[in-house]
Amino acid sequence: MTAPVRKISDKIPEPTLRRLPWYLSCAKLMRGQGEKYVSSTQLSKQINIDASQVAKDLSYVAVSGRTRVGYDIDCLVSVLEDFLGFTNLHKAFLFGVGSLGAALLQDTGLSHFGLEIVGAFDVDPEKVGTTIAGIPVYHTGDFPEIIRQSNVNIGILTVPINIAQEITDYMVGGGIKAVWNFTPFRIRVPEGIVVQNTSLYAHLAVMFNRLNEELK
Amino acid sequence: MTAPVRKISDKIPEPTLRRLPWYLSCAKLMRGQGEKYVSSTQLSKQINIDASQVAKDLSYVAVSGRTRVGYDIDCLVSVLEDFLGFTNLHKAFLFGVGSLGAALLQDTGLSHFGLEIVGAFDVDPEKVGTTIAGIPVYHTGDFPEIIRQSNVNIGILTVPINIAQEITDYMVGGGIKAVWNFTPFRIRVPEGIVVQNTSLYAHLAVMFNRLNEELK
Repeated sequence: MTAPVRKISDKIPEPTLRRLPWYLSCAKLMRGQGEKYVSSTQLSKQINIDASQVAKDLSYVAVSGRTRVGYDIDCLVSVLEDFLGFTNLHKAFLFGVGSLGAALLQDTGLSHFGLEIVGAFDVDPEKVGTTIAGIPVYHTGDFPEIIRQSNVNIGILTVPINIAQEITDYMVGGGIKAVWNFTPFRIRVPEGIVVQNTSLYAHLAVMFNRLNEELK
Repeated sequence: MTAPVRKISDKIPEPTLRRLPWYLSCAKLMRGQGEKYVSSTQLSKQINIDASQVAKDLSYVAVSGRTRVGYDIDCLVSVLEDFLGFTNLHKAFLFGVGSLGAALLQDTGLSHFGLEIVGAFDVDPEKVGTTIAGIPVYHTGDFPEIIRQSNVNIGILTVPINIAQEITDYMVGGGIKAVWNFTPFRIRVPEGIVVQNTSLYAHLAVMFNRLNEELK
């Protein structure tokens, strides 16, 4: 009785990708409330997005809803988690054990969403050789050797902006294929290398600006 | 000799707002290297954005570059920091002292970008009454009284998704005007309340998907 499931991961638009976690969290929430099925109309109301957009977005992950009952919730949760990469653990190294870097090392929530930080790099002698939340901190100079002995291809960038590009080049030279960039610096990478920018400070700036407008 | 400076903060498009921190970090970097002036062409090359776009973006903050020499760097840094709200400390409360919440309390970097977390709320008796990085953790039930004695209008949401909406309503009811939402849940707020979504997990999903495409 389960709806047919196929994965079509090619060419999924980024706005769709960004919305999928909303559908996932909403579906998990409804499942927690004992629901067995959820319709795109229900998701649409919960999330405040047009129902036809919800149905279109979900068509990319090839979950088919059944007329009048909607999507099987267990199936929807499972397909979305799988599609979003939350069910596989992706190993990552973190560069720059400053305030934000150390905070991310301590965020165990990341592992529930598929990211396991297995090592961190810094040059500060006070930090090198220690562990933070069980994660070893190595000297940045040891990275090429350490990555050769690992199967890590994700690098998290939390260094000061003046070395953001240099460390990016260093990571990519060592074999990193995706850089999660938390610096407000716009790093450049060769073709084929994935960059995900998450500048908390840029988001803060947007929030402050909008707040000031509202308070005028 | 300084370029004329005015602030025009109305109706600045969000893409522009998101790019301004890039210009700021780039200008700070060049200033650190001893430069006195920077042109939109230089910024454009560093950041890999069309020079006319850079000039247009900067026109919103009303920094005027001088022909052939460009922007005075000190002036540009100062105007951007001010415009982006990084020079004023905005006080905030944080709701949900889980893994990510506790990590944010420990990220002292936020204060360099204008955000000071002055209190956190949770219901866990193990956490209530403690301090994390000097920030007191109160019982969620005490929030209405505590906000009355403060001038805080920003709330950071790091609770589990099943209470994200409830806690948002509670915050807004107490007088919070801007919600920085780190949950993957799409919260709803009354008109006039600012929401900034920063779902690390949604960004992870985008990165995993792009990485999988590259590795195919």
